[in-house]
Formats: sequence, structure tokens, C-alpha cells
Amino acid sequence: MAEAPPAFPLPPGSTIGILGGGQLGRMLSLAAARLGFDTTVLAPEADAPAARVAARHILAPYDDPAALMELARAADVVTFEFENVPAAVVERLTRAGVIVAPGARALAVAQDRLEEKTFLNAAGIATVAFAQVDGPKDVAAAIERLGGRVLLKTRRDGYDGKGHAWVDSAGAAQEALARIGGGPAIAEAPANFRREVSIIAARGRGGEIAVYPLSENHHEGGILRRASAPARASGPIVDEARRIAAALLGALDYVGVLAVELFERDDGALIVNEFAPRVHNTGHWTLDGCEVDQFEQHVRAIAGWPLGPTAAIAQVEMTNLLGDDIAAWAALAAEPHARLWLYGKSAPRPGRKMGHVNRLRPLEA
Amino acid sequence: MAEAPPAFPLPPGSTIGILGGGQLGRMLSLAAARLGFDTTVLAPEADAPAARVAARHILAPYDDPAALMELARAADVVTFEFENVPAAVVERLTRAGVIVAPGARALAVAQDRLEEKTFLNAAGIATVAFAQVDGPKDVAAAIERLGGRVLLKTRRDGYDGKGHAWVDSAGAAQEALARIGGGPAIAEAPANFRREVSIIAARGRGGEIAVYPLSENHHEGGILRRASAPARASGPIVDEARRIAAALLGALDYVGVLAVELFERDDGALIVNEFAPRVHNTGHWTLDGCEVDQFEQHVRAIAGWPLGPTAAIAQVEMTNLLGDDIAAWAALAAEPHARLWLYGKSAPRPGRKMGHVNRLRPLEA
Repeated sequence: MAEAPPAFPLPPGSTIGILGGGQLGRMLSLAAARLGFDTTVLAPEADAPAARVAARHILAPYDDPAALMELARAADVVTFEFENVPAAVVERLTRAGVIVAPGARALAVAQDRLEEKTFLNAAGIATVAFAQVDGPKDVAAAIERLGGRVLLKTRRDGYDGKGHAWVDSAGAAQEALARIGGGPAIAEAPANFRREVSIIAARGRGGEIAVYPLSENHHEGGILRRASAPARASGPIVDEARRIAAALLGALDYVGVLAVELFERDDGALIVNEFAPRVHNTGHWTLDGCEVDQFEQHVRAIAGWPLGPTAAIAQVEMTNLLGDDIAAWAALAAEPHARLWLYGKSAPRPGRKMGHVNRLRPLEA
Repeated sequence: MAEAPPAFPLPPGSTIGILGGGQLGRMLSLAAARLGFDTTVLAPEADAPAARVAARHILAPYDDPAALMELARAADVVTFEFENVPAAVVERLTRAGVIVAPGARALAVAQDRLEEKTFLNAAGIATVAFAQVDGPKDVAAAIERLGGRVLLKTRRDGYDGKGHAWVDSAGAAQEALARIGGGPAIAEAPANFRREVSIIAARGRGGEIAVYPLSENHHEGGILRRASAPARASGPIVDEARRIAAALLGALDYVGVLAVELFERDDGALIVNEFAPRVHNTGHWTLDGCEVDQFEQHVRAIAGWPLGPTAAIAQVEMTNLLGDDIAAWAALAAEPHARLWLYGKSAPRPGRKMGHVNRLRPLEA
């Protein structure tokens, strides 16, 4: 109950509020239940995967004022499973006396690619070179300054490869901007990377940090397909990834789990592509690869509990089950070392994340 | 939906019905959700731990005919988390067209200690010597035949050490029978055991069997306190326990997970104390000690899925958190290799199972 400010650590029996009803909320809810917490899910879908394992479902749009008040009354702390939570929602919850974690700052930075890269650079974290784009002239200038070819992205709301367009001439600027929707954009220099890795990290209420091993990620059509962890990586690469995660968590005064997507460049340097202020698809390997997975870790962090161990206990190859991939469930269920995580979604639309499978093998030395 | 007989294996999205709302139902519900199933829990308590992680809660007594019809309509298969389900309940569900697993036979045998031991012996499984007791004269005869001192137990409904009384003279028979409630009883010879072990095993719809490593169990005041697994045991002991579990599963034509409590006698022989036709407290170590825990295994079995691997991946010491033990949650949360499972119960009555902790260490060679 939010009438009095909650005392951290939250005792078992407290209620975790979750904005969002998808698979991330579902796995958060399962982790919270293991620790004796109830969850209340605010989501506009009657059949939301998270709501079906939650103690309570507030069925309403995310910005419904009465629903937010209800969530604030029910929850001792509120978190979210998607980063496009409107700032006004967090403000309203905060005014109603409930603590939202991660906080408004992390959300604001993550929601705008220009702010995000600017923030990262200011925190001593490298990114690709980039430029603000408000119209075709900015595109032309960016092409010149950033080396002949740039990736245009919407500043807000793109995900899974949507809202991206390559452009290499001033003449094509107008059309490329239209293709990504026309609004405020960012132009990025080519990253020239040899692989994408990511790192999941958590920061507790006392500022303590826990970082998981690296994952190596493979996308298809802009959607994550596979992730392998712990990724093979040199000591300096691992150290640098951990430094980046810790610097970012500190700069954001972050509470909870955060994912950082990194490019390992052809020259061996690590740069940040983007971060997500939440549990993340590239961290699903931790569900079977670590004693404390990213979902329990997030619950521990936002509840003010001590963070758990992050060492890998198995080598994991995580494969997303997209759309009709789910039809293979029976064959997957028969694989002895394949752990299935299915999200309870009924309609297998193309590209829709229906579940994932973690294939386990003994840890590499 | 039970209108048409379900086709096994049940596809993700099917509904598992659970009779009972306690911690076993809660952990079954969590496991079912991981595999993409919904659960519907029938339990008479508004704050039932299982109901708070289930897609649906039918709030009614277990023998409420309308509630049972509702459960039968909602569920593709029904299971239970306690063995004292009335036979009439299973009959009613079966008549309503839903499959109950495990079946009526296993329930009937497990509900009556005399039938249970008789059945076990007939299946080639050793128990203590025992005698039927319907009155004081039977007690006197049993004392004579079974060696001077017998343990009286109610035939039905005792658990966690309730309904037990030792008696060593005909003169004390009347009083001892009164102490255990007066009804039909069984007299057991002393087991003379040096330790108690148990084994969790599963049988699938096709008759395939999967058996977990042994657990060594320690009780206090008749309630399980600690369980260590895999238990140190000689090859012949492990083989004999596995033989017993397989023989029992086969004899019962069982579907689902079953627990067998065994006494290792001073002479090294294994005898069965009792079995439980359900997931079991002595199997909680599998939650963190195996790739597929007893709860997922049970869901796999009753849903007609292939059984999962049962090898241990860690050495586990499971400790029950009884009553006020739960007050130590913060210290337990800070132990790096202690995995907490809390049940969401609000009132820590003495002896009440509030949660358990699995302490992990690397597997012994």
C-alpha cells in the first residue's frame, strides 16, 4: 500500500506493480511469486500473458488516470516491462505516492535516441558518431560529416528494426526521412561491427552493482533470433563491457535490471548501440544459465533486496520462437536439454515472440 | 475444454486444473505457466497461494458440485496437490468428461494406510510388518505378533506426525486408540531405521518412467525440516530405490509425479514407509538442483509431454521455513547461494510451511 512510503527492503507479501502485460511482465511475475510477492499487472489486453500469472489484473489503458491510481494504491513499488512508458504516467504514479523503478530519468534518456547517445558520451561511453536530424538539410550535412553513408532512425518509438533507413546521398534524404515516418530523427555513422554482444546488469537501492556474463546476439530481419552466453570474449572486452554497464548504471542512478547492446567493432573496440531500461530478450539465457536470473534480479533490486549471484552455471543458446516457430513445441519438448519458456499467446502472427528455448550444455572452461 | 476428450500431448494454451490452493499448487502453477499453460485453481481460501499465480480461481469447497462442473469445463486435465481428495470428487470430474491425473486408483490406495501397505507388499515392495486394528483386541494381538511394541496410526487422514501413538501393552491399547481418534487403525512393527530417504519419480502417459536421485530427510516433531540431495547412498541402495519407485508406478498405472518415503534399516535394507500421489516437500530440492524440477515434470506427465531429465546439476540442502522461520527472510536473501521459495502466506502459525530455502553447492563427485 502506498499510503505510507514503503520501507525497503520490501517484505514478502508486498505487491509489485507491473506496467505491461507481455512476456517480460509474465516472467517478472513468476520471479516475484517465487520470492513471496504478489503482482498487480496494469495492461489493456484481457488475455495479457503477464496478467494470467498475476494476483491481480487492472484491465485499462496505460494512461488511464483511475487505473494508475488503483495501481498506486495496490503496489508497494511499480516497474514496467517496456521502455515507452509515457513520462506523464510515471509522474502520476509518483504523485500518488508510489515509487517507480527504474526512475523517470532512465526512461527519458532511453526513449530518445539522440538524448541516449548524448548521455552515453557524456558518461564516458563510446557510441557511433551521430547527428541530430530535423530535416533533409541535416541529413545532407550528416552524410558529409559522418563519412558518406548514414543510418537514419526515428528519435523515438522504433524497435525490432522498425523506423530505420540507410541513406547515402542528399538527394535521397527526403524520401528516406519519409520512410521512417518524417518526425525528429538521428543520423548515425556506420558502426562497422563484427558482432553484437549485450550485457545485462543490475543496480540495487544501495548502489551495489551485479553484472552478468556477455551474450552474443544474432538478429534476423531486425528481430533477435539467437543469443549465446556466456559469449566467448577476451578479458579486456569483458572488462570493458562491465565498465560500460557500471558507468551507465551509476550515471542514471539506476535501480533494477538494464540491458546494454554493444557492437564489437572490426578494430576490437566496444561501443554502445543502445540500452533498454528493463529486463531484456538477450538476458533470457539467465533463466536457465544462472542461479539468479534477470527477472529475479530485477525484483530483488526494485524491492531493495540484496542482489544475487550472476555467474553462469551452464552454457546456453537461447532461440526465440517467432510466429509459427511455436508449432515445433512438441519436438522441442522432447529435447532433453532444451528448456522451454512459452508465453501463453494465442495468435502466432509472423515475427511475434511466442516463446523461447534455452538449450543447455556444460560450461566451457 | 472438456466437451471433447483432450488429445495428448496437450498443446500450450491448454488449461491445467488444480484441486488445492497451497504451495504445491502454487509451484505447479508456476511450472505450468513456463510451458505456456493456463491454470485454474479450485480452492476454498480467498487468499490461496496457488490462486494468486493462476489464470483463474474457482473459490469454493472441494466437493461443491457446481464448482467441480466449472472446473471440468475449464480444464483439459485436472490434478491435485493433496492426497485426501474425496473419491466422489474424482468420480464427479470423470463423469463430467475431464481426465484426472493421477487417477482414482492411486488416490484410493494412498488414502488408507492398510490398503497402501497391502498394495505395496502385493507389488513386491517391502514395508514394516503391520496388522489391521479395529479395536483394543487387535492391538493386543498385534503387540504379540509384531514384537512387543507397535506404532498405531489412523488408517486415514493423518499427516505430519498427527494421528500416531506408540503402544507396548494390551492394557494401554484403549487409551492409545483414543489418542489417535478412535477410528479404524493400523499397527506397525518398529521400522528400526537409521535414516529416512525418499525418491521422487514420474510416469508419463506412455508408461515411460523418470526417477530423481535420492533425498535424505530429517524431521522434527513429525514435520520435515531438512532434505539433502542427491543423498549419499551405495549403488545397490540407489538401484533398489529406483526399482521400488518403478514397480509402484507401474502397479498403480500411474500418470504424474509420485514421492516414495523410504526407511533405510539398520541392516541396510530399504522398506517403504508411505508414498504420496503428488509432488512432495522432499522433492523441492529439484527446483534448483535439476534442469526439470518435480513440478514441471508433473505437468509434463499429466499433459502427455515427454518426461524431462532428472540428473542433479547441484548439491542441494533444502530447509523448510516453518512458522516464524520466515522472519529470517532478509538474512536468507543475502546468502549468495541460497535460493528462496516463499509461498505468499500471511499468517506464520507455528509449524506452518511458509517457504523453503535451497542452499546450493557444487555436485559431489
